[in-house]
Amino acid sequence: MPPPGAVGHQRRRAGRHGPARHPHPHPVARRGARVISPTRPYAGVVPPVLTPLTADGEVDVPSLERLVAHLLDAGCHGLFPLGSSGETVYLTDAQRDLALEVVVKTTAGAVPVIAGCIEPTTARVLGRTRAAEFLGADAVVVTAPFYTLVGPHEVERHFRAVAERTALDVLAYDIPACVHTKLPVELQLRLAVDGVLAGVKDSSGDDVAFRQLLVAVAEQGLEYAALTGHEVVVDGMLLAGADGSVPGLGNVDPAGYVRLHAAAAAGDWTTARAEQDRLVQLFRVVDAADPRTTHGSTRGVGGFKTALALLGVIETNTVSLPMRSLDAEETARVRAVLESTGLL
Amino acid sequence: MPPPGAVGHQRRRAGRHGPARHPHPHPVARRGARVISPTRPYAGVVPPVLTPLTADGEVDVPSLERLVAHLLDAGCHGLFPLGSSGETVYLTDAQRDLALEVVVKTTAGAVPVIAGCIEPTTARVLGRTRAAEFLGADAVVVTAPFYTLVGPHEVERHFRAVAERTALDVLAYDIPACVHTKLPVELQLRLAVDGVLAGVKDSSGDDVAFRQLLVAVAEQGLEYAALTGHEVVVDGMLLAGADGSVPGLGNVDPAGYVRLHAAAAAGDWTTARAEQDRLVQLFRVVDAADPRTTHGSTRGVGGFKTALALLGVIETNTVSLPMRSLDAEETARVRAVLESTGLL
Amino acid sequence: MPPPGAVGHQRRRAGRHGPARHPHPHPVARRGARVISPTRPYAGVVPPVLTPLTADGEVDVPSLERLVAHLLDAGCHGLFPLGSSGETVYLTDAQRDLALEVVVKTTAGAVPVIAGCIEPTTARVLGRTRAAEFLGADAVVVTAPFYTLVGPHEVERHFRAVAERTALDVLAYDIPACVHTKLPVELQLRLAVDGVLAGVKDSSGDDVAFRQLLVAVAEQGLEYAALTGHEVVVDGMLLAGADGSVPGLGNVDPAGYVRLHAAAAAGDWTTARAEQDRLVQLFRVVDAADPRTTHGSTRGVGGFKTALALLGVIETNTVSLPMRSLDAEETARVRAVLESTGLL
Amino acid sequence: MPPPGAVGHQRRRAGRHGPARHPHPHPVARRGARVISPTRPYAGVVPPVLTPLTADGEVDVPSLERLVAHLLDAGCHGLFPLGSSGETVYLTDAQRDLALEVVVKTTAGAVPVIAGCIEPTTARVLGRTRAAEFLGADAVVVTAPFYTLVGPHEVERHFRAVAERTALDVLAYDIPACVHTKLPVELQLRLAVDGVLAGVKDSSGDDVAFRQLLVAVAEQGLEYAALTGHEVVVDGMLLAGADGSVPGLGNVDPAGYVRLHAAAAAGDWTTARAEQDRLVQLFRVVDAADPRTTHGSTRGVGGFKTALALLGVIETNTVSLPMRSLDAEETARVRAVLESTGLL
Repeated sequence: MPPPGAVGHQRRRAGRHGPARHPHPHPVARRGARVISPTRPYAGVVPPVLTPLTADGEVDVPSLERLVAHLLDAGCHGLFPLGSSGETVYLTDAQRDLALEVVVKTTAGAVPVIAGCIEPTTARVLGRTRAAEFLGADAVVVTAPFYTLVGPHEVERHFRAVAERTALDVLAYDIPACVHTKLPVELQLRLAVDGVLAGVKDSSGDDVAFRQLLVAVAEQGLEYAALTGHEVVVDGMLLAGADGSVPGLGNVDPAGYVRLHAAAAAGDWTTARAEQDRLVQLFRVVDAADPRTTHGSTRGVGGFKTALALLGVIETNTVSLPMRSLDAEETARVRAVLESTGLL
Repeated sequence: MPPPGAVGHQRRRAGRHGPARHPHPHPVARRGARVISPTRPYAGVVPPVLTPLTADGEVDVPSLERLVAHLLDAGCHGLFPLGSSGETVYLTDAQRDLALEVVVKTTAGAVPVIAGCIEPTTARVLGRTRAAEFLGADAVVVTAPFYTLVGPHEVERHFRAVAERTALDVLAYDIPACVHTKLPVELQLRLAVDGVLAGVKDSSGDDVAFRQLLVAVAEQGLEYAALTGHEVVVDGMLLAGADGSVPGLGNVDPAGYVRLHAAAAAGDWTTARAEQDRLVQLFRVVDAADPRTTHGSTRGVGGFKTALALLGVIETNTVSLPMRSLDAEETARVRAVLESTGLL
Repeated sequence: MPPPGAVGHQRRRAGRHGPARHPHPHPVARRGARVISPTRPYAGVVPPVLTPLTADGEVDVPSLERLVAHLLDAGCHGLFPLGSSGETVYLTDAQRDLALEVVVKTTAGAVPVIAGCIEPTTARVLGRTRAAEFLGADAVVVTAPFYTLVGPHEVERHFRAVAERTALDVLAYDIPACVHTKLPVELQLRLAVDGVLAGVKDSSGDDVAFRQLLVAVAEQGLEYAALTGHEVVVDGMLLAGADGSVPGLGNVDPAGYVRLHAAAAAGDWTTARAEQDRLVQLFRVVDAADPRTTHGSTRGVGGFKTALALLGVIETNTVSLPMRSLDAEETARVRAVLESTGLL
Repeated sequence: MPPPGAVGHQRRRAGRHGPARHPHPHPVARRGARVISPTRPYAGVVPPVLTPLTADGEVDVPSLERLVAHLLDAGCHGLFPLGSSGETVYLTDAQRDLALEVVVKTTAGAVPVIAGCIEPTTARVLGRTRAAEFLGADAVVVTAPFYTLVGPHEVERHFRAVAERTALDVLAYDIPACVHTKLPVELQLRLAVDGVLAGVKDSSGDDVAFRQLLVAVAEQGLEYAALTGHEVVVDGMLLAGADGSVPGLGNVDPAGYVRLHAAAAAGDWTTARAEQDRLVQLFRVVDAADPRTTHGSTRGVGGFKTALALLGVIETNTVSLPMRSLDAEETARVRAVLESTGLL
């Protein structure tokens, strides 16, 4: 029997695109029977690709090409451009299009590209899903509506309306810290059963609900890719049955996350945990910016970009307004973290 | 006598479009000495203009023209298109441009048009401020960043960066229910002193902070337009010294809000309160939609649009996805409210 | 002339202590017909009485007696001991009993004493209502459950269970900042109709809901005392139809609040507003404590106590652990506020 | 072999109390070198003991004795009476004392008893720590202040003040859902270094912070017991280095949690995960109560008690007001869950 995921991916693409770009059947066993599925279409290490910027705030194409190569060379299993870490809500549509085009071209079909389509409401999301289709993404990632005040019915209607109007697979992006709505387990299951959602990037911070989701998905034999967005708990989430991770920190150390995933897939949880512990230490690059004058995204994206600039992958650590770039002293703190964790 | 708002409006436009932004000393009496300021540029009743839609979700231009006429005929002192009630986060940029163009043209300079420029981050807001400049708005209204995680420094940098890059006056839109950041009184005062902000539309629901703002503005003799966005407490906010109101419900009954404002300006608080009490009852149009299947914006914008359709001002009660339009039973409840409050 | 509140107070007490709780039709005019009701049992200025402490943290009885005299001499219409400002959740039951006993004895029936009975759950609240009955309070004030996770049914069951088991009138204390549940307007109306609640101390900060409550109470002709707990917006709330206020700041300047209430009752809103504006300035005593090392209650209760110590009403500015008392520099800032607002 | 927890338990008391009940030095290896620590004083499975009630709401002593025996017979490594699941904020002090006395006596020193001392503020917590000392508890569990508004300085002062005034070890209870303050990693580390806190029961739902805590504790070689309070993610938390769990569901199936812990301690993560997955299914007893008329604690504690009544461990499924007991239909749903997971 063909494995879940492979077939669906093939079928899904076949059903939607005609000739499939990923021709090999996936040798994955039934979900209930396995720990993690490294060959799922949406599985493994799928970093949310940062968007390198030039000093004057434009998309830095050569840096982005190097970053994609950095991720693919390390063995990442997918790429997620235009997510929160990709500063998507900071970019104009033209900048988003350019960034996505660069990622798709540089990836050249090696792994799936799932494109963030992050806008407050249905019609605006559809503007982005059309761009994603046109530019060759393999799937789209969509949040619950934000800014506007919605309840459960509006959220469900939103995902259904988006999925009806795009040929691409839709993954939910569960990120209540940004959109202030948590996607309930029951809703995700219902939308999975109905073929509306192909999976979720879970950045909810609600590991209880995520575990309940994983158990229910396995029980019901659903094809639903469950990826954790929390880079410091990937080992535990894989143990719990997650299909993979979407680690912002994976931009900085993709090889570490690939090793972590491989160890977990092999059932070597001691190695997985040790790798994760090191990555928890590396994650301290997000603490480098002075907390008295920076917050949230400035610290996270700013720390990641500074690390990548120090590693020589991207040119500058520029971030979009109203964030600010890390200064020399803060950069020195990032360097110290990279050194202590063996990256420099 | 020129309408409230008109005088300041003229002055402000002159200042804005000529070489010097504020060439003359302000002829406005010291704030502490008055109850409300009828000659401010941003004062009086400034409804957040709804965006009527055709059945297939496009901007309904004739309906919008009728709505603007409905508001101006009632004596409103300004118009605020592309706010939350205007479904701005549901509209594409082209739809926003069209709606703003229609409002500006129909208004024809009679009152100031302050245009919502509501996007998550600085660069994207600037895309909208440029459109507002091009299309002839008199000022722009800007929220704190949303979706992305920010702290006080990012918020302040955001407003400063926007104001530096637009020739139009910038009013802050304090709406933590949507952006999940409250604009502190101290920040507003600092940005007022520095000429970054010309005023605020306060939809914070924090009447304590709003009063503290009003007292501090008066003490310091600042020119800072303080408009309340809460349509059911306008009388109390005017008593406290607010310059005016931005009532979503003012789309439905602009004459009521103009009467309320006039009574307050004349010191006739008994009349002001009675008018407000009637408007509180009228506000129940937002309770018409079934709470088991609707939420937030669907109930608010949906109720207002249904009322306006019943009043014959706009053609349909269509709202944008993922909201849904009110059904027949819900529409009957709206009709009952309009009848009991004397509008039908 | 008897003070506002006294008449209703007498009636209510008679009804409560005799066989029939409410034996006569109420001689109160229809709510819709009046601005504020001077003859309600729970109306006018009802300060939440602070609990002065000795340097070693015990209830300072002579200071509490002086504080009560300070409030009664100024003409307050009721007293609310053991509220949040009274540090009730910091006190042992023995300390609470002592504080309540002192307030009741010192008041000697001059005005109603409504006693806070603030505990997380029903049985524990009932322990406090029994103490309030025994010690001679006129009514009790009860919040929604806290700490434990509850929904609307548990909240309603809580108030019903408490009211069934006490002979005293029950006022709801709507304080979501502390209990993290807002009491909906519909719930309050239902409990008012059913005789469960006699009124509310509204510290919700939700002036929109409070106005909707006031309009609905007037429409339905309910007897439901609506008191605002926000000391900087009392004028607007009285204009909207509130029966009175429960101002923490009223400990410091009770005469100011009595003048404000009297002006409002007389329809002199200009005077009411001017008095309120001065009190907004006085409220800055809560900003005296260094925000880098203090928060919330420390700043509020600590500021009030420091002001009262400077005014000579209470002996020390001691607050309960884990709060800390204001230091000399902070006390100097409180003194400056008292001087600039004419109290020193 | 003595149960995990017992040895350390002895040492800890010796160090602080003089006459040592448990005289052996502690053979614990450096934390960094192990996966989980079976010999820590506060480690392993430490259920938050429910408080069985009679039909009229009093502590049901025979049922509580049977419940303790049920937990000890299954091999639990410690007991945590008077926690949230123990309805501590619903009980009077007399009821709390009785419940704690029964647990201590029935346990008879077999495992450590850590007693919840859950009150809003310092002095009231100290009332409970004195009771815990008197009644023979081995340690106390204390939350951040609640109801009152506090900031970081008040929270730190609170824990320091409590620890200074009790001879028992103090564990922090990090439960922002109830107290609305998250205990930051830095604060916990500082208080661990200073000997203020001996550990934490983490019910924060913030697995990211919990992992960061675990890594920092290991790096710094601190002795700080880190117990997860989330019963559906215990396997992942143990993989991450947690010392144990405090599972409410452990009342219902303590043997399952003991097996899970033993498998994890042996490095058999496949077995641990399978056991955890079954327990996730069992956790659905908390979904049995009708969500339209119950919420939060009613569903959780009510579901657990109903399960224990069905299992014959306790007499009734009575819960405290304002919760309600599960009805027959809901009880049937609990029974179905018990049957499908092999407990009935």
